[in-house]
Amino acid sequence: MEFSSVNTIWVLLGAALVFFMQAGFSMCEAGFTRAKNTGNILMKNLMDFCIGTPCFWLVGFGIMFGAGTGLFGWFDPMIMKDYSSILPSGVPLWAYAIFQTVFCATSATIVSGAMAERTKFSAYCIYSASISLLIYPISGHWIWGGGWLSELGFHDFAGSTCVHMVGGVCALIGAKMLGPRIGKYGKDGKPRAILGHNLTFAALGVFILWFCWFGFNGASTVGMDTDELIVSAGLVFFNTNLCTAVACCTTLIFTWLRYGKPDVSMTYNAALAGLVGITAGCDAVSPLGAAVMGIVFGLVIVLAVEFFDKVAKIDDPVGAISVHGVCGALGTILTVLFATGVSTEKGVFYGGGFHFFGVQCLGVASVILYVAVVITIVFAILKHTIGLRVTPEEEITGLDVSEHGLLTAYAGFAMLPDTAAVETDAPVAVTGSVPAAEAIPVKRVPSFDTADGTSPKFTKVEIICKESKFEALKTAMLELGITDMTMSHVLGCGIQKGKPEYYRGVEVEPTLLPKIQLDIVVSKVPVRSVIETAKKVLYTGHIGDGKIFVYDVENVVKVRTSEEGYDALQDVE
Amino acid sequence: MEFSSVNTIWVLLGAALVFFMQAGFSMCEAGFTRAKNTGNILMKNLMDFCIGTPCFWLVGFGIMFGAGTGLFGWFDPMIMKDYSSILPSGVPLWAYAIFQTVFCATSATIVSGAMAERTKFSAYCIYSASISLLIYPISGHWIWGGGWLSELGFHDFAGSTCVHMVGGVCALIGAKMLGPRIGKYGKDGKPRAILGHNLTFAALGVFILWFCWFGFNGASTVGMDTDELIVSAGLVFFNTNLCTAVACCTTLIFTWLRYGKPDVSMTYNAALAGLVGITAGCDAVSPLGAAVMGIVFGLVIVLAVEFFDKVAKIDDPVGAISVHGVCGALGTILTVLFATGVSTEKGVFYGGGFHFFGVQCLGVASVILYVAVVITIVFAILKHTIGLRVTPEEEITGLDVSEHGLLTAYAGFAMLPDTAAVETDAPVAVTGSVPAAEAIPVKRVPSFDTADGTSPKFTKVEIICKESKFEALKTAMLELGITDMTMSHVLGCGIQKGKPEYYRGVEVEPTLLPKIQLDIVVSKVPVRSVIETAKKVLYTGHIGDGKIFVYDVENVVKVRTSEEGYDALQDVE
Amino acid sequence: MEFSSVNTIWVLLGAALVFFMQAGFSMCEAGFTRAKNTGNILMKNLMDFCIGTPCFWLVGFGIMFGAGTGLFGWFDPMIMKDYSSILPSGVPLWAYAIFQTVFCATSATIVSGAMAERTKFSAYCIYSASISLLIYPISGHWIWGGGWLSELGFHDFAGSTCVHMVGGVCALIGAKMLGPRIGKYGKDGKPRAILGHNLTFAALGVFILWFCWFGFNGASTVGMDTDELIVSAGLVFFNTNLCTAVACCTTLIFTWLRYGKPDVSMTYNAALAGLVGITAGCDAVSPLGAAVMGIVFGLVIVLAVEFFDKVAKIDDPVGAISVHGVCGALGTILTVLFATGVSTEKGVFYGGGFHFFGVQCLGVASVILYVAVVITIVFAILKHTIGLRVTPEEEITGLDVSEHGLLTAYAGFAMLPDTAAVETDAPVAVTGSVPAAEAIPVKRVPSFDTADGTSPKFTKVEIICKESKFEALKTAMLELGITDMTMSHVLGCGIQKGKPEYYRGVEVEPTLLPKIQLDIVVSKVPVRSVIETAKKVLYTGHIGDGKIFVYDVENVVKVRTSEEGYDALQDVE
Repeated sequence: MEFSSVNTIWVLLGAALVFFMQAGFSMCEAGFTRAKNTGNILMKNLMDFCIGTPCFWLVGFGIMFGAGTGLFGWFDPMIMKDYSSILPSGVPLWAYAIFQTVFCATSATIVSGAMAERTKFSAYCIYSASISLLIYPISGHWIWGGGWLSELGFHDFAGSTCVHMVGGVCALIGAKMLGPRIGKYGKDGKPRAILGHNLTFAALGVFILWFCWFGFNGASTVGMDTDELIVSAGLVFFNTNLCTAVACCTTLIFTWLRYGKPDVSMTYNAALAGLVGITAGCDAVSPLGAAVMGIVFGLVIVLAVEFFDKVAKIDDPVGAISVHGVCGALGTILTVLFATGVSTEKGVFYGGGFHFFGVQCLGVASVILYVAVVITIVFAILKHTIGLRVTPEEEITGLDVSEHGLLTAYAGFAMLPDTAAVETDAPVAVTGSVPAAEAIPVKRVPSFDTADGTSPKFTKVEIICKESKFEALKTAMLELGITDMTMSHVLGCGIQKGKPEYYRGVEVEPTLLPKIQLDIVVSKVPVRSVIETAKKVLYTGHIGDGKIFVYDVENVVKVRTSEEGYDALQDVE
Repeated sequence: MEFSSVNTIWVLLGAALVFFMQAGFSMCEAGFTRAKNTGNILMKNLMDFCIGTPCFWLVGFGIMFGAGTGLFGWFDPMIMKDYSSILPSGVPLWAYAIFQTVFCATSATIVSGAMAERTKFSAYCIYSASISLLIYPISGHWIWGGGWLSELGFHDFAGSTCVHMVGGVCALIGAKMLGPRIGKYGKDGKPRAILGHNLTFAALGVFILWFCWFGFNGASTVGMDTDELIVSAGLVFFNTNLCTAVACCTTLIFTWLRYGKPDVSMTYNAALAGLVGITAGCDAVSPLGAAVMGIVFGLVIVLAVEFFDKVAKIDDPVGAISVHGVCGALGTILTVLFATGVSTEKGVFYGGGFHFFGVQCLGVASVILYVAVVITIVFAILKHTIGLRVTPEEEITGLDVSEHGLLTAYAGFAMLPDTAAVETDAPVAVTGSVPAAEAIPVKRVPSFDTADGTSPKFTKVEIICKESKFEALKTAMLELGITDMTMSHVLGCGIQKGKPEYYRGVEVEPTLLPKIQLDIVVSKVPVRSVIETAKKVLYTGHIGDGKIFVYDVENVVKVRTSEEGYDALQDVE
Repeated sequence: MEFSSVNTIWVLLGAALVFFMQAGFSMCEAGFTRAKNTGNILMKNLMDFCIGTPCFWLVGFGIMFGAGTGLFGWFDPMIMKDYSSILPSGVPLWAYAIFQTVFCATSATIVSGAMAERTKFSAYCIYSASISLLIYPISGHWIWGGGWLSELGFHDFAGSTCVHMVGGVCALIGAKMLGPRIGKYGKDGKPRAILGHNLTFAALGVFILWFCWFGFNGASTVGMDTDELIVSAGLVFFNTNLCTAVACCTTLIFTWLRYGKPDVSMTYNAALAGLVGITAGCDAVSPLGAAVMGIVFGLVIVLAVEFFDKVAKIDDPVGAISVHGVCGALGTILTVLFATGVSTEKGVFYGGGFHFFGVQCLGVASVILYVAVVITIVFAILKHTIGLRVTPEEEITGLDVSEHGLLTAYAGFAMLPDTAAVETDAPVAVTGSVPAAEAIPVKRVPSFDTADGTSPKFTKVEIICKESKFEALKTAMLELGITDMTMSHVLGCGIQKGKPEYYRGVEVEPTLLPKIQLDIVVSKVPVRSVIETAKKVLYTGHIGDGKIFVYDVENVVKVRTSEEGYDALQDVE
């Protein structure tokens, strides 16, 4: 047999898993941003993969894996030439091509997170294509395609630099050139937390990415048919997992100490930091090395996110620059300290010299320089032609509506009622059948009178209170004889000062607090009873106990019985 | 060794991935429909698999893979007979049985999407069983079980016809017989967009399906132990991915041109169209062929969805008929144009004759005919016995409540407050301790008076404005000295005419616009100041700047301090 | 070759899949609980894995797999000793170590569901660590590490007892010691349904778990290089799937009969019950046996959930005790009845003796006893030191805010408006430019007058109605000439008695019903016309048709035109 069953299975399963990272990135980015841009983010994450796939087939693969020179493969539309010299042992061309396609798309997808919520969709499609067509394949050729860095012995096992840092550098330049989202920085220059709309999706995204990373790193052995590869694959799995777990533990403790409470969203980010960081050296370090590296990534991710947010003032909604750029570069360099010599030269901590260290630094630096220059040119051209950013009005409205004509990604949810109601065939307008007595202008008169000529008084009591008191309040009102109430969720906007909370290191303004509004209209039950009962139930003596407003009501109609006024409020059923 | 490790691993992993498509279908269907039917949709997607599994074990597998005749296998409850003649090389019976079970369940699950939001759950369970018991196994026998179509040389590699088109035809007949959802078509016969409730779930579903399709198509080699199979698996992966990516790019451009903006939901549908379409011939065409086929599917899906929506007026909430029925049939036939001869006869474009073309068309036509007849009988029986559709009232209320007694699938979310409040042990009713002064009927009197006999005036100012103006309005009010406001999300229902937006090709009525309502009660701060400030902040000169309403307030009570009236509004804390 | 490619691939893929179960557990637990605790639940599910991983590396693996004695392996930090005697054939150490790590983490993660919504996060981290460090490894050593139970012939193929029941017992003790959530039991001691916030996430979680279970059970052959193992793997896949599907069908029918409607959430739970139950014997029973066992699990899960809820009064929000504890133990014991002798001694129903039965019972009993004792000590220590439970106030507020400073996991969603608004550079406060005429206290006067000295009357009509009537009502009002309305979602709280609905066997109080509130302010259109039209549209004669309230309005301002009063209501645009 020319081909190896196990190697090809391994590579193809890796390809499927790395493809599935697109779902992870989509969920992460959608979850960490606001609901009004969700459709746009989902669209970008789909399209970078869909645009990248034919681009890599048409041009990218040839550039990356063509024999060519040390700097550039060759131009080979549709992958027609001979690649047998670079194919892994026993793996057929198309299996390797799909494996490499999904890695390329991963690099392209990273950018969308950092540039989320303000980038023009058309510009996005173009620069995303440029990454898959050119930017990624060229540096990829240097590292994995037999180019000059691979000749020097640069070690980047599964792509901390080749995939993640390339994406991270593009993300950095892009987010810088775009500028921050409207409202991200106050007049005082201080960052404001813009909270994501669905942490559950974000968490799911991280779990999907972690799962798929076993394919990303594991299948990067591109073979399982020798003892060496089998042992390596086992170590890669163990190191990838251990480093990531330790990074999360570190961030948990670090944010707990730093912000007073363990930060959920940052700890989930730490998982990605650990995964990106260990990717370069997961085959080369021991579990102990992986664990120590995890501690480093867990600390660095917190500091890096804060640095870009507060010092560099580059608005990166999902932390992509810190995760992929910073931890990608750092992981590549740390590899050379912790390498045990099992698959590379010995690292510095294991008695190796500084030559290997120099190569890794040179590789990282040259890739940063190259990518930064090219993507800057791409963004600059876009900025001065079709434009890179949506208008402020479009941004505030949300990119779902402005870029895709999508009212909201959650239309059928709580936001909008069903548009599908029964068609009423009978005419419902009754203009002719009612007295036109209340023509205007009229003096203020009650719109109805009771038989004895007196108007019973109806009063609406509107109670604003804490959500946690609602149940008790409802029960008390039922006991008081109130049979009909209307409850809604509102937000109290006050100037109450509470203890500040932190979201990814940025203080969250506590001026909007969820409240319950309970509306009660009474006639028989004394208003005073309602007020006193509510006060008794709601009173705790703390700020935020609530307020009660009293309004006059002119009339009440009960639809089912057509009763009006006093009778309409007597629910004896 | 009698069995092959790699072949069995390949088949079992394929089975696991194809099983996971159930999650993809569930998320897709739930996301593309309304929140009030979510529980029902999740239940149907679970149960079609759970009912299908024992049905296929008890009856289906025997019918499909029993030697029998060219039309029908045999009746073999619990798979006890000998199947060694049809088992793939080196794969044990139960491994192959689970692999086939999950394919069968895929076919059954397709139907639920097209018939969503109005089908009776009991009827669903029965017709779903009939697909797994009988309908799918019989045509499956013809194609994959050694039946007459396979004898003729019909090529359907992983099931464009055998799995997807069978599901799609059932979906078409079902949706037609059910009739459209209430409100889908206006009195003028024009379709109305009924938007799904969670595009993020729908997108996740598509990503899951794409991921699993690598198992669906890839593992359909049912072996990896020869060079031919290994090469084929690589090509299958590459083609599946390329065709799908190109289909999405095509739909992106096509909808952009057609509707003015790239349609998110339709582009996600295009991914499924590409996946379904390439399934029949992913082993038989070149990457170039796959790409060209992708263009076709990307165009056809848009036209097909519009056709069923606008012309045929068959209401298919998720586009299942277009995706699985149309693209399934089309993919099977296109295969015969693009087949390079690597695994089948040469296709028409590669110099092959029209015999192969005729076989493919015959296969597609006979399966359509067969499935249409049988499922029509099944639906007709159901319609005239237990009924196929819920009552209009149940449909409007939502199938979650009416079919499953589930208030909503999102009960603990924003819709409902916690039912779990602190039990108040102290009696809260205070009926005895308050004056019963406000007994009715009374003349209109203020419910309280201040010491000097005058009633200070309290006024409620209710401001309805755009969401994007809320922050500025809040800030302005705080600067004005307003310390307490209540904000809520409302929908403005007007007759404003904006630029129409499209959702899956259908115009969305722009009559409901999200607005913010800010309620402010003032006494000290002049009402006029509040009005003028609000006007200044909100004014843009465009329709939709908002309205301000002014109401009289009779009294205000602050719970914490028991202050009433004027004092209750002075938040000096 | 020393190592086996296929065995290592099998084990590593199993490890990746079992890791991904963490995503399934997270989604399940988050979905079945309330939105206010989502961030906390996601954090716990991440951290139990992240804490467990280094714990198992540092201590657990040595205890579980060290040669040691029958009761305890050895203490071997960082897995440095020789484990060749226990490694599966052809699998290298680190591949096996990662495989065992993810199993250990599964056991730890089970507990979080039963103790959700009230456990202190710091206490959670500690007891979670204790499970991975000590509790799981010791009983694991007995069963899988060559300890005394494995010597006796105890059969627990993939961990019904070893993994799930261990987690389930910890969950039981924990939930009992914590006490129920506030509001779970009324004063009458009757349980109240606390509905989860997102059934779609919960369903996704179940599908992910089922998918991953093919790795959990399938890869537990820890090899694929012999005919016996290959056949076994196929049978394991088939049985796992069949038992689970049958369990769901059983629960569907059982809840349909018992509660009147098929219960969505319970049926999804049944899938997990089936999966847990078949885990011990999936290699040892026939498909028929698996199906019968599925029936048992489908019945038992319903009864067990009800038992803990209603009789034992142990509050388990997600049913973890019933799923993992009860079905884990039951599955282990049922194995001995249905074992066909293919991989174990013959079971009781196949002519085997009661010795094997005794061994299984002894194993289950001793593990329950051991785990219960140790975890009770752990919880007791925690309770008397840092505390096990948050304060009632923190619990009501939600653990997201109190434990993590996270306002809500869905901040950017419907709950809160964007914090990011345009910075208004111009000063907006206009205090100086408006007349201070309305200084207080003033007599009640209208805040404006028209030219002729009369105040036209403005009236607000507030209509509360069913959601399904909204569309018809809106249309009727537009036909009546009303051009501006505001709609919001509210909840009607009445004492209407409807048919009770059940959620997981507990009656749901039907006192809160979603309603639409439509606010209309009229001047020209007669109030009476609005009322009569609304009555005509809304009338059905059933309870809940709605109410109409009429209020006086003092003034109306249209922002765009600065028109006030009558003119402001005339939208002729």
